[in-house]
Amino acid sequence: MKNDPKNSLIELGDKLVNDIEKGKNPNIEVAVRALSNVSFDKKTKMLSLGEKKATREFFNVGHIKKFVQTLEAAKISKNLIESAKHASLRDVFYMAKRSIPGTRINIVDDQAETDNAIEDLELITGHSREQLGMNANKMGSVAGKVIIEDKGDTIDWGRLGSGGWSIPSNVEEIEFKKVTAKFVIYMEKAAVWERLHEDKFWDKENCIIISSQGQTTRGIRRLLQRLHSENNLPVYILTDFDPYGIYIYSVIKFGSISLAHMTESMAIPDVKFLGISADDVVNYDLKKHFINLKEVDISRLKQMSEYDWFKNSKAWQRQFKMMKEFKAKLEIQALSSRGISFISEKYLPEKIRKSEFID
Amino acid sequence: MKNDPKNSLIELGDKLVNDIEKGKNPNIEVAVRALSNVSFDKKTKMLSLGEKKATREFFNVGHIKKFVQTLEAAKISKNLIESAKHASLRDVFYMAKRSIPGTRINIVDDQAETDNAIEDLELITGHSREQLGMNANKMGSVAGKVIIEDKGDTIDWGRLGSGGWSIPSNVEEIEFKKVTAKFVIYMEKAAVWERLHEDKFWDKENCIIISSQGQTTRGIRRLLQRLHSENNLPVYILTDFDPYGIYIYSVIKFGSISLAHMTESMAIPDVKFLGISADDVVNYDLKKHFINLKEVDISRLKQMSEYDWFKNSKAWQRQFKMMKEFKAKLEIQALSSRGISFISEKYLPEKIRKSEFID
Repeated sequence: MKNDPKNSLIELGDKLVNDIEKGKNPNIEVAVRALSNVSFDKKTKMLSLGEKKATREFFNVGHIKKFVQTLEAAKISKNLIESAKHASLRDVFYMAKRSIPGTRINIVDDQAETDNAIEDLELITGHSREQLGMNANKMGSVAGKVIIEDKGDTIDWGRLGSGGWSIPSNVEEIEFKKVTAKFVIYMEKAAVWERLHEDKFWDKENCIIISSQGQTTRGIRRLLQRLHSENNLPVYILTDFDPYGIYIYSVIKFGSISLAHMTESMAIPDVKFLGISADDVVNYDLKKHFINLKEVDISRLKQMSEYDWFKNSKAWQRQFKMMKEFKAKLEIQALSSRGISFISEKYLPEKIRKSEFID
Repeated sequence: MKNDPKNSLIELGDKLVNDIEKGKNPNIEVAVRALSNVSFDKKTKMLSLGEKKATREFFNVGHIKKFVQTLEAAKISKNLIESAKHASLRDVFYMAKRSIPGTRINIVDDQAETDNAIEDLELITGHSREQLGMNANKMGSVAGKVIIEDKGDTIDWGRLGSGGWSIPSNVEEIEFKKVTAKFVIYMEKAAVWERLHEDKFWDKENCIIISSQGQTTRGIRRLLQRLHSENNLPVYILTDFDPYGIYIYSVIKFGSISLAHMTESMAIPDVKFLGISADDVVNYDLKKHFINLKEVDISRLKQMSEYDWFKNSKAWQRQFKMMKEFKAKLEIQALSSRGISFISEKYLPEKIRKSEFID
């Protein structure tokens, strides 16, 4: 059984004390987090971190700063866990930021340093930073046929008026009490969420709707994964028809390079792309709402079409090819040109009934 | 009594039909929305729009496009109201975007055009775009001692676990059923909200906590205003100690130039600035966490110190002067250097007990 987060931290401390008592140079081993040590596992269909490790030594001018920063983050984490509190990444930075007594050297000067130390801790302990008491920003809303329990409150995601439940940065401790929904739609845009919510889409179609605004936070990714793995719900992704939308899908499905060490608890290999696809553009007569691809779109498109996990997918190569031929992208709100509730009354029910997903 | 939104739109249509029947050039009068027509009303302590009006005529090559765009927005608004639906600003753009039959001319080519037409409609009808069925993006979370009713659901803002209620883009229709909270704190940062929420600050201090992330949306401003005016709750603003934080306060308190026509339903002249103040920096020994002011900060600071509403405030001029002398700003999370719950256990209770507000 995996250690609990606090015990993992204590283990790290014990190891270092042991090094000292034995007269060894105290050191920490951390897996290398770089593209060179990340690969796509064809079996699990997820990004995964390789075996390469780096050693950080206390008596080493080149290592000492990172060594101390990692220990400082471990100390802060242990305090947070003991007081059952959660700090934001920015908080952790300020908690670590002070000068070493008798010197003018700060333990950290920049949040990137504590962020890095926290990622190291994730690797060393095998626990997510959320479990270590550290959160990123919260973002996003959810509504649907689910009842959860969280912090002693029973919350019905279907009884929250026009607002929905505000997704916390950390969803590790919520408990699913009753899940009658049959699937989950995650959408990139809050405005689309409000459209579907006003149309009672989740009620009519017996599902869950989740949105962020722009980026998919870790809180949202974990929520999607827990809904999928603990409740066997299919998860569908709804984004603009553009390289960024497909990238959002890619990260949720396969993982991301910077979080390759967290893939197992974050990626959802079964997730499916619901739209907007190149075929939708044709089938629903939306070409007149095309927006020209920018330079950055074109280079991102090229990059993505060469990703291991897209390279051998005929379906995706076809999408990339069509987007390239169109030389254009399309926003999901273009569906509104067909009527305000076209998306909830026709587009989505039709796509889902016909299982028009891209895998 | 003010017309309801739909009747105001019908009135606009009737007026134009009337113009046509009388053989007049159909025209619409709209108040000028520009700095030249915006002034600070010393009595109400709010920005307000002056008397200058512009006339838009149908038979006028320079006016016709805006004329048609405004009518198109009115038509979309009427349809939305009749179907009791709300569209996002982006949706409205796509609903208006089509070519005029027999021509290659689009009614709108750019969202800025429909956004503008919608603001015109606000002026013409005297109703907010939310009342006209059009919403901006949703953002933000709320928790506290309040029970509301919304869309048939009864929602206790104090029983929503770690997430809180996700604030909708449109808060016009929520009803306050039971408000036991004694004041409201609005904070710029979601991470600070999560800190206060985890510490049950609103429960201990009997209040409401509201956050967005960055910008204060119209939904949030209206929510603050309704909590203040309908429930007599003082509203306190909590931001970083920087020109942008003070700007956030300024907009909530006095209104903004671009929304001067909406000031009455948006501004809260009684709102008070809770922190972080220049005095806090000194009193709580936070100088070591200073961040140097950037060029853009310095010019914004200069600009603000010359605003009518700050010019005669000794308290604010003192703050501006101190910030200028510091040549530095400070993030609210710097309080975490004094301990993770320093903000909720010491800083805020102390400031509120001593009424250390800036007005």
